[in-house]
Amino acid sequence: MDFAHDDRTTDLLARARAFIDDRVIPAETVLDEQLAATPGVWSFRPVVDELRAAARGDGLWNLFLPGERGAGLTNQQYAPIAEATGWSPRLAPVAFNCAAPDTGNAELLAHFGTPDQQAEWLDPLLDARVRSAFCMTEPDVASSDATNIGTRIRRDGDAYVVTGRKWWSTGAMSPDARLLIVMGKTDPDAPRHAQQSMVLVPRDTPGVEIVRPLTVFGYDDRDHGGHAEIVFHDARVPAANLLGGEGEGFAMAQARLGPGRIHHCMRALGMAERALSLVRERARTRTAFGRTLAEQGVVREWVAEARIELESLRLLVLKTAWLMDTVGNRRAMTEIQSIKIAVPRAVQRILDRAIQVFGAAGLGPDQPLAELFAGARALRIADGPDEVHLNALGKAEFAR
Amino acid sequence: MDFAHDDRTTDLLARARAFIDDRVIPAETVLDEQLAATPGVWSFRPVVDELRAAARGDGLWNLFLPGERGAGLTNQQYAPIAEATGWSPRLAPVAFNCAAPDTGNAELLAHFGTPDQQAEWLDPLLDARVRSAFCMTEPDVASSDATNIGTRIRRDGDAYVVTGRKWWSTGAMSPDARLLIVMGKTDPDAPRHAQQSMVLVPRDTPGVEIVRPLTVFGYDDRDHGGHAEIVFHDARVPAANLLGGEGEGFAMAQARLGPGRIHHCMRALGMAERALSLVRERARTRTAFGRTLAEQGVVREWVAEARIELESLRLLVLKTAWLMDTVGNRRAMTEIQSIKIAVPRAVQRILDRAIQVFGAAGLGPDQPLAELFAGARALRIADGPDEVHLNALGKAEFAR
Amino acid sequence: MDFAHDDRTTDLLARARAFIDDRVIPAETVLDEQLAATPGVWSFRPVVDELRAAARGDGLWNLFLPGERGAGLTNQQYAPIAEATGWSPRLAPVAFNCAAPDTGNAELLAHFGTPDQQAEWLDPLLDARVRSAFCMTEPDVASSDATNIGTRIRRDGDAYVVTGRKWWSTGAMSPDARLLIVMGKTDPDAPRHAQQSMVLVPRDTPGVEIVRPLTVFGYDDRDHGGHAEIVFHDARVPAANLLGGEGEGFAMAQARLGPGRIHHCMRALGMAERALSLVRERARTRTAFGRTLAEQGVVREWVAEARIELESLRLLVLKTAWLMDTVGNRRAMTEIQSIKIAVPRAVQRILDRAIQVFGAAGLGPDQPLAELFAGARALRIADGPDEVHLNALGKAEFAR
Amino acid sequence: MDFAHDDRTTDLLARARAFIDDRVIPAETVLDEQLAATPGVWSFRPVVDELRAAARGDGLWNLFLPGERGAGLTNQQYAPIAEATGWSPRLAPVAFNCAAPDTGNAELLAHFGTPDQQAEWLDPLLDARVRSAFCMTEPDVASSDATNIGTRIRRDGDAYVVTGRKWWSTGAMSPDARLLIVMGKTDPDAPRHAQQSMVLVPRDTPGVEIVRPLTVFGYDDRDHGGHAEIVFHDARVPAANLLGGEGEGFAMAQARLGPGRIHHCMRALGMAERALSLVRERARTRTAFGRTLAEQGVVREWVAEARIELESLRLLVLKTAWLMDTVGNRRAMTEIQSIKIAVPRAVQRILDRAIQVFGAAGLGPDQPLAELFAGARALRIADGPDEVHLNALGKAEFAR
Repeated sequence: MDFAHDDRTTDLLARARAFIDDRVIPAETVLDEQLAATPGVWSFRPVVDELRAAARGDGLWNLFLPGERGAGLTNQQYAPIAEATGWSPRLAPVAFNCAAPDTGNAELLAHFGTPDQQAEWLDPLLDARVRSAFCMTEPDVASSDATNIGTRIRRDGDAYVVTGRKWWSTGAMSPDARLLIVMGKTDPDAPRHAQQSMVLVPRDTPGVEIVRPLTVFGYDDRDHGGHAEIVFHDARVPAANLLGGEGEGFAMAQARLGPGRIHHCMRALGMAERALSLVRERARTRTAFGRTLAEQGVVREWVAEARIELESLRLLVLKTAWLMDTVGNRRAMTEIQSIKIAVPRAVQRILDRAIQVFGAAGLGPDQPLAELFAGARALRIADGPDEVHLNALGKAEFAR
Repeated sequence: MDFAHDDRTTDLLARARAFIDDRVIPAETVLDEQLAATPGVWSFRPVVDELRAAARGDGLWNLFLPGERGAGLTNQQYAPIAEATGWSPRLAPVAFNCAAPDTGNAELLAHFGTPDQQAEWLDPLLDARVRSAFCMTEPDVASSDATNIGTRIRRDGDAYVVTGRKWWSTGAMSPDARLLIVMGKTDPDAPRHAQQSMVLVPRDTPGVEIVRPLTVFGYDDRDHGGHAEIVFHDARVPAANLLGGEGEGFAMAQARLGPGRIHHCMRALGMAERALSLVRERARTRTAFGRTLAEQGVVREWVAEARIELESLRLLVLKTAWLMDTVGNRRAMTEIQSIKIAVPRAVQRILDRAIQVFGAAGLGPDQPLAELFAGARALRIADGPDEVHLNALGKAEFAR
Repeated sequence: MDFAHDDRTTDLLARARAFIDDRVIPAETVLDEQLAATPGVWSFRPVVDELRAAARGDGLWNLFLPGERGAGLTNQQYAPIAEATGWSPRLAPVAFNCAAPDTGNAELLAHFGTPDQQAEWLDPLLDARVRSAFCMTEPDVASSDATNIGTRIRRDGDAYVVTGRKWWSTGAMSPDARLLIVMGKTDPDAPRHAQQSMVLVPRDTPGVEIVRPLTVFGYDDRDHGGHAEIVFHDARVPAANLLGGEGEGFAMAQARLGPGRIHHCMRALGMAERALSLVRERARTRTAFGRTLAEQGVVREWVAEARIELESLRLLVLKTAWLMDTVGNRRAMTEIQSIKIAVPRAVQRILDRAIQVFGAAGLGPDQPLAELFAGARALRIADGPDEVHLNALGKAEFAR
Repeated sequence: MDFAHDDRTTDLLARARAFIDDRVIPAETVLDEQLAATPGVWSFRPVVDELRAAARGDGLWNLFLPGERGAGLTNQQYAPIAEATGWSPRLAPVAFNCAAPDTGNAELLAHFGTPDQQAEWLDPLLDARVRSAFCMTEPDVASSDATNIGTRIRRDGDAYVVTGRKWWSTGAMSPDARLLIVMGKTDPDAPRHAQQSMVLVPRDTPGVEIVRPLTVFGYDDRDHGGHAEIVFHDARVPAANLLGGEGEGFAMAQARLGPGRIHHCMRALGMAERALSLVRERARTRTAFGRTLAEQGVVREWVAEARIELESLRLLVLKTAWLMDTVGNRRAMTEIQSIKIAVPRAVQRILDRAIQVFGAAGLGPDQPLAELFAGARALRIADGPDEVHLNALGKAEFAR
């Protein structure tokens, strides 16, 4: 359980941080300007393409993906780099081609895809020529319980026919999201966790209707493809588009979620560090009632509490990464659930207080805080709400 | 300290509730459609005008304003009605011509305006022919400490010349906001609380530059005129536009804030009740892991906690209203500060949990929860951040 | 819903406060000395008898009891006086003959006792010639669910025979506690809430074994009779000792708990006010790092938070009292549960912070804070743990 | 930063745990019986002597002390063993001769004592022939600010004369505490942190008055020498009894506190684990309202929250130990402060909920929970209250 950075991590982290400080953070205002100039556009803006080209040139590319196709980092090696990207979640992950949901989708394809599926979809994803979306959550059921899923995937001759309604398919508003990975039931009468399968549905398949964009708080997240509601009206794809085997959908979704959750947590820590850094700068210079905010006991307590929480949770994230690397995702489940619960919640609290330090400026567009808050808040629901994980964790504790 | 409703309150409340249930809540989706159809427009949509005409016809009009010009209600009589309007904060207050910041501005004009000022601005406001904005907060200073204010109002012959930068002027993006009430310093060398004055600045005054709209958690609040950043480039108004006397700005701002704060708290209670009502409906029907959410202990605890908080805080709001009615706003200052701190914070927490009950739906546009959350969150900063009031309250406690 | 004090309350409260300030608080150190001088003694010390004589002479006697036998106060009239006694919970309630569990037991006897039972037990209780205990909680079951109770009360000819083990019978270590009111099952096969009955068991009944005293956070509460574990070894009492009818035990227990809970809450508010008063005094004079504690932002926030909580919860207690007086205890159940949950918890938090202000002194015997904390903490369990009430309250909310 | 146990730790930990499970936990009831049989006695009971002999025979002895005189463990090696002793804080630390305040005092003597001082006091301490106390806290000042200290140590010829009042000298009620290490000012006019010195004062020195025992909540902690108030009436000791140099008292106190604080935190984690273990056992078997507590969502959330907190804080403690071992106590100050704040607070919360799970039993003498709670609560004050550390931590954060 050695948490020190090895040489490769030290090197990559230094380069990643420098790239983020020097190129990504300054690009945030450029992105804002390009967004303002292009209402209604859901694909990447030019500034993103420029950052991606530069990062790729610097070897900061596909760092999330283990194995030969990616950078081959362990979770522990990737953790601090993912945290660094959290300082600018709108730009840094995508600059490094390490942004959800493409990361999870690429992992699925790398693990479970056939060579043909990999050639068709994984290579372009890793090459940043296309993007993708993951269609899991449904408006009509509590999707944290996968047995509730209503979408049907029926075999019909040489094809699968997909019928159902999905929403919160992140990235899917973008025309670049050419691949939709859809979770549905192939056999509703099978045992609870063998009913589900996944199919690869090209965006241009007849019967795929992108209904509307959704907002998170008031943000449309237009910069990275938004969040779509999608209806599949008997959309028909070749049988070869089945990912993995029939009935393996639930297991694949679980496999996908482990790394996804830890990546989210790592980035969330970076989001909180960014907020703390802004608070430090603000509090040192802002004066109220005769003293700087940094000299006021209440503000000091806030940053002290934040520092304690971040230090202890970062260690828990690192331990989780180490467990995933050494004993596997399944046996790291308790820790994955623990950080999934604890980190976004702590980060939300830290962001809430950071907003308070900034006053009205914290609510608005000139600081990243309110948007970071919306992102952290959403993490407490994405991939299963806190309460589902707390219940599972408590149950496991009683089974010790 | 009798908190029972008198006959007039009972009658008005019943009618207000019926109006809100029957006309306002159903109009929310109409408003959404009209907003979607009119991007970039900051003035009221047709559905608002219809509601206003209907409410006025029903005698549900200017209920916030004491005295003969308004409905003549006491704070205690108005409290439950204001709470009822909180169920639909985008539409109900404005339907009854009881929406901030017009309410506070009308109170200022009613108390401190000359007959000419009242004829020019108060009558049209109460008649809903114009709207108004209040220009207090500045980007460059901690405005909760009024002595920090940087805007200058200089006497120059028969005129005052206004120079400075304001932001978060709610409603000011709307072209209907024809009146801006601006707080600035007329005498920076006077005693701390005698430096400030207020002037009435018509929107079309040369030198008034509406710089840009601001967002609150991504919401532009376009339906009620948004929040503007405004620069006053030596904007010149007649000397007769001074509101009250020179140096009376601070006292007038304080006088304005008392009712404003209690109105905000009343509405916030209604926002929380709306959320609880949505939670009840959802939890009774939504099933996860074999039981409805309403049968799960954790959800039960949440609604129990919410009920306790709302009941106790509502009583504190009512006591505050009673004190304002009987001993005056100044002597109710401790209670006004108490509810200003406690109510928005409790409502934020209740909304956060309501979002959790709704899962992804709670974050998005189909439920009012995320937008209500943004509103409640902003209240913890508007009219002075919690910490300023907590400090003042603690100081007062030690002076007992 | 008028919460103003009427003339009788104003007069009684003034006299009660004066008595507590002038006689009770100074007597606390006398009690400590008398306790130190009499280890192992469980009955009242001389200082208590002196206070009782004085209070009775001042007409401050049996104030808790409605009707002609007591002072005839409503709950609303009694509330502020009960709060005043909370400033010195070891001495003030007992000085006024208003201490639990005698109060609840007297209410039971007054409502459900036969004239003979009242002559034998109620009159001596109201005359302070005896004390009493209530034997409800059992070590072996979750007693908050009355259907779990294991003690049996069997009819045998002209007698009832009591068999079972009880604990946390407050006051029962004192030899003065000559009456034990015992809850047990007369018919385990009856419907859930018709199985239980109560019998009056004189302390000197053969088969009554006072096993041992219990402690609460190390305190033996020796000053008011401690808390006993008691075994009933087939203890036989005349059939005439049945209180109420067979199968009415559950209903009587509920009836007893309503007033008991509100009295506890009122006193708890007084405990918190005492703590705040001590904090104010300490913080004004204690200096650390160059400033008094009263000048430090964190301490100011604490007392501000405490003030807000106490003000809002006091109003909720008053509303509860008003409801009990006007619509009856049963219809005030939601409010009784609300204050039962919220008040002790808030008071515990306030006491915890008060201890922190006092540092090591707060933990020890020179300040009343640690002992008050133990008392407030116990209230979250006595008469049903918070969680039982939260669950019931949540369930009721979903039934609205 | 490798947190895995090395072979020596693995071996020692296994033996320590076995000893605690097999011998210490069963001895707790024996201790209770021996305490009940010997009121007013402050020295160790026979059961302690038996455990000490056995532990020493097993090589579980002086594990806290680095270097050749002790077991020579690093902080990281000692950490899990210290945690294990927290399962029974009344008996396990003392059984291993690893109990405060002797540990800190032995460290002082080992680092700063002369050979003569070590021969006279350190050897007997490590041999368990005597005990000791540390006299730092004073009733009249906020002792967390060492410049406030009022006790004077004056040089007078070949002697030092000690004058002052101390309290909360843990262990000092025991006649076995033959050594008192006293902190006082030798030069009140020196720079802030050079005014203080320490002297070794034998308990039987004329002028040493043991005034009275203090209680923590209601516990006198009689089993390990209680907590004493002590007055030094011009107590005269040889000049050779100065520990370290004049003016080095503050620095030595800081040096003493680093290990002391981490030991407290380690043990506190063990206290919480003990509580969780009791909760698991109780909740699996206790039934309320038709289901075991372990099946109830609210209880599950509690244990889940506890597990998350303990896992993350344990890692922070381990990191702190690693830092102390590798870069020294001074450069680990931020982490030491962090765990000093976070661990006792979390443990207090966990114990509070554990008590709630046990109901009335949790408050009383049959479960260790209430006494553990009192111990954890005291840790938030001992060695400086939370607020002092939070302020320092916040200040440091702004100096980053």
